[in-house]
Amino acid sequence: MKNLLVIGAGRSATVFISYILDQARENNFMVTVADADIELAKKKINNHPNGRPTWLDASKHNDRKDLIQRHDVVVSLLPPQMHLEVAQDCIVLGKHMVTASYVSKQVFRLGDEARQRALVFMNELGLDPGIDHMSAMQRIHQIQKQGGNITAFYSYTGGLVAPENDNNPWHYKFSWNPRNVVLAGQGTAQFLEDNKLKYIPYRRLFRQYRVVDIPGMGPYEVYANRDSLLYREAYGLQKAKTLFRGTIRHKGFCDAWNALVRIGLTDATFPIVDSDKLTYHDLMEAFLGISQHTGSVKDRIAKMLETEPDSEIMQKLEWLGLFSKRRIKVQNATPALILENLLLEKWALQPKDRDMVIMQHVFEYEVNRRRKKLTSTLVMKGEDSEQTAMSKLVGLPLGIFVKLLMQGKIATTGVNIPTMPEVYEPVMAELETFGIKFIEKEE
Amino acid sequence: MKNLLVIGAGRSATVFISYILDQARENNFMVTVADADIELAKKKINNHPNGRPTWLDASKHNDRKDLIQRHDVVVSLLPPQMHLEVAQDCIVLGKHMVTASYVSKQVFRLGDEARQRALVFMNELGLDPGIDHMSAMQRIHQIQKQGGNITAFYSYTGGLVAPENDNNPWHYKFSWNPRNVVLAGQGTAQFLEDNKLKYIPYRRLFRQYRVVDIPGMGPYEVYANRDSLLYREAYGLQKAKTLFRGTIRHKGFCDAWNALVRIGLTDATFPIVDSDKLTYHDLMEAFLGISQHTGSVKDRIAKMLETEPDSEIMQKLEWLGLFSKRRIKVQNATPALILENLLLEKWALQPKDRDMVIMQHVFEYEVNRRRKKLTSTLVMKGEDSEQTAMSKLVGLPLGIFVKLLMQGKIATTGVNIPTMPEVYEPVMAELETFGIKFIEKEE
Repeated sequence: MKNLLVIGAGRSATVFISYILDQARENNFMVTVADADIELAKKKINNHPNGRPTWLDASKHNDRKDLIQRHDVVVSLLPPQMHLEVAQDCIVLGKHMVTASYVSKQVFRLGDEARQRALVFMNELGLDPGIDHMSAMQRIHQIQKQGGNITAFYSYTGGLVAPENDNNPWHYKFSWNPRNVVLAGQGTAQFLEDNKLKYIPYRRLFRQYRVVDIPGMGPYEVYANRDSLLYREAYGLQKAKTLFRGTIRHKGFCDAWNALVRIGLTDATFPIVDSDKLTYHDLMEAFLGISQHTGSVKDRIAKMLETEPDSEIMQKLEWLGLFSKRRIKVQNATPALILENLLLEKWALQPKDRDMVIMQHVFEYEVNRRRKKLTSTLVMKGEDSEQTAMSKLVGLPLGIFVKLLMQGKIATTGVNIPTMPEVYEPVMAELETFGIKFIEKEE
Repeated sequence: MKNLLVIGAGRSATVFISYILDQARENNFMVTVADADIELAKKKINNHPNGRPTWLDASKHNDRKDLIQRHDVVVSLLPPQMHLEVAQDCIVLGKHMVTASYVSKQVFRLGDEARQRALVFMNELGLDPGIDHMSAMQRIHQIQKQGGNITAFYSYTGGLVAPENDNNPWHYKFSWNPRNVVLAGQGTAQFLEDNKLKYIPYRRLFRQYRVVDIPGMGPYEVYANRDSLLYREAYGLQKAKTLFRGTIRHKGFCDAWNALVRIGLTDATFPIVDSDKLTYHDLMEAFLGISQHTGSVKDRIAKMLETEPDSEIMQKLEWLGLFSKRRIKVQNATPALILENLLLEKWALQPKDRDMVIMQHVFEYEVNRRRKKLTSTLVMKGEDSEQTAMSKLVGLPLGIFVKLLMQGKIATTGVNIPTMPEVYEPVMAELETFGIKFIEKEE
């Protein structure tokens, strides 16, 4: 396999394209980067002799098919809802396909067809999902080989700011999609605890956080992800009594975020008419609703939140400028969009800021009638706001896998996620050469 | 106009069909009742000589058009999402159309076409929406005629159980769509208070209730409806500084309902796998999530709700059977559907039970530099669980309007709601002959 097609040259493509071009000369790969913005494709290729930029409107069926036809492997970095069409083309044209996104039900259903045609459709090859699967499965298989029986599995991930550049009261800056941060947790989180299903609705999610200790870093807060139960089958953990996946935040984050949720600022279901004519102060007042209390908007918000006007929570809200008489910049926006725009300003990584990713798995297991606990932790910092840890941890596993696939080293056909040794062993080993290494602690 | 077509013979059709058949002989109306269940249509017509049952699958375009073609006026009692197709047929075939449902945006856009063809498309002719519009507009126009300037408008409606049959701790029984009761308020309620927009997100809605006094009945709780601002234009109340619409409940209801919301039981966004294998007790335990507390599920729920195990709220939850070891009856159901099914049992009107509808409008206005307040209240009880006040208050205004239309007494063409004197005067006058009368109080 020589010809690779990468569809989409946006932010999440940078590290991946750079890695695969680095590998291209010795492997004799030709890498076509297709995007609706050809300048972006050119920039990412940066005149590499094995790279070829091309213009593509991925929604144009015939153009897309023509392009796919001329390649061996397709990497789709399109928005998730567009993967299905690309996958259908790949089935018809007999091409392998790789994504970093969650497998949708529709793509999952193509599994039999892909297998019949001996095609590799590998997904969830980023950080979370991605490295989480690979690093967890590596340890799960090790424990099982020793005859161990895993009774509990906890897994936490957080994209944060490095402590040395942590200079705001929220102790948070964006290193990835801000929209996902604002809407995180809406619905009801599900997990398994001591063989019992547990549900946490959104309104309690940021109150019911756990505190976990990250070796060398100290305590962090973790709130539950929506989907812990999905991993029971995928990881072969049907016997585990506890399964919990969560998101890591700095201490104090959850209580303050919960205040934004309580006020109503994360609601994305209705537009505020003429929101650009309001100030943040007006918006906060609008959320006060009926009130017998008198006093400033800030005092009344504090009362509503059952906290003191000078509490840490209120200091965080004030720092965001929520009580300022500055105009809101977006028109007819939902509260969630107004909040997202404000946070984009306030929580931006500055050019020299380093981000930090933390991932931790905890395995409780029994072996030879003894109870053991294995904690496996990754802490990685970026170089600056461009060369982030997040972008490397998303782009490199995808790149390494695509290289392996094109070298003919992947035998697992069908629609899959990277839970098998054939994938995680070489990917995790090569990630270590980039300084991406989990530290283990046995108890 | 002689030929009326009624599409849909379900529960909400009973009073309407019976009224219009009563009027049919002297007016020489022929009434066709069409339903996918012809036995239901027959039952509602009850051998009346002016009635004709017919079978119709309303989703079958040609059958529907053939039937509409042979009539002068069409009343659609179909589920709301089907009104648009019927409306489009009526435009093409030149027929008048009447519904009791909210006007959708799509139907609203047919207004110009309807007017050009001199067609009457009247909607929102039930209780709420319906009688609320008509009774409020009657008073608004009266006040404006006196030179009054309305500064505040409050409007509340509740479908309740009559005090003499109120024998459960929630003081509530269903007289209308249970699903709407379970899902009520999800999103963010909007209203205007003292010229300021106010928002109440779902998580605060049932805590921020008002207490209003219903003459002769005592104090009730009122929580905000989602949509108070919609009525500013429709009612010509652009100068009012306060606009608030709400739903009436018995004292103590909102706090206890808020407990169900807090637990997570009104979430309709995810199914609980194999819910029919769980007991209500299991379900409550699942919602307890992570907890350091020990003790019974009931004690831990009380702790979570920050109340005492023997508080009124907890007594209401216990009365519902939420801590019982009885099996849940529905499979793979969302928490909201499980709750709806439980409430259907617990909150059913018994055969001899009487329901009670309360509607109250409060107008604050200035006339000749004096501030006045007019309170206008309707309290109506049903006869039993079949002849409910609710069904009369929904069916009669629709019936009276359709009679007027077929008698050629309605001149307002286009897509409308009943805010004009030509409609509300005769409808409200005839409603009085059925004992439906608002009591006024001036201050």
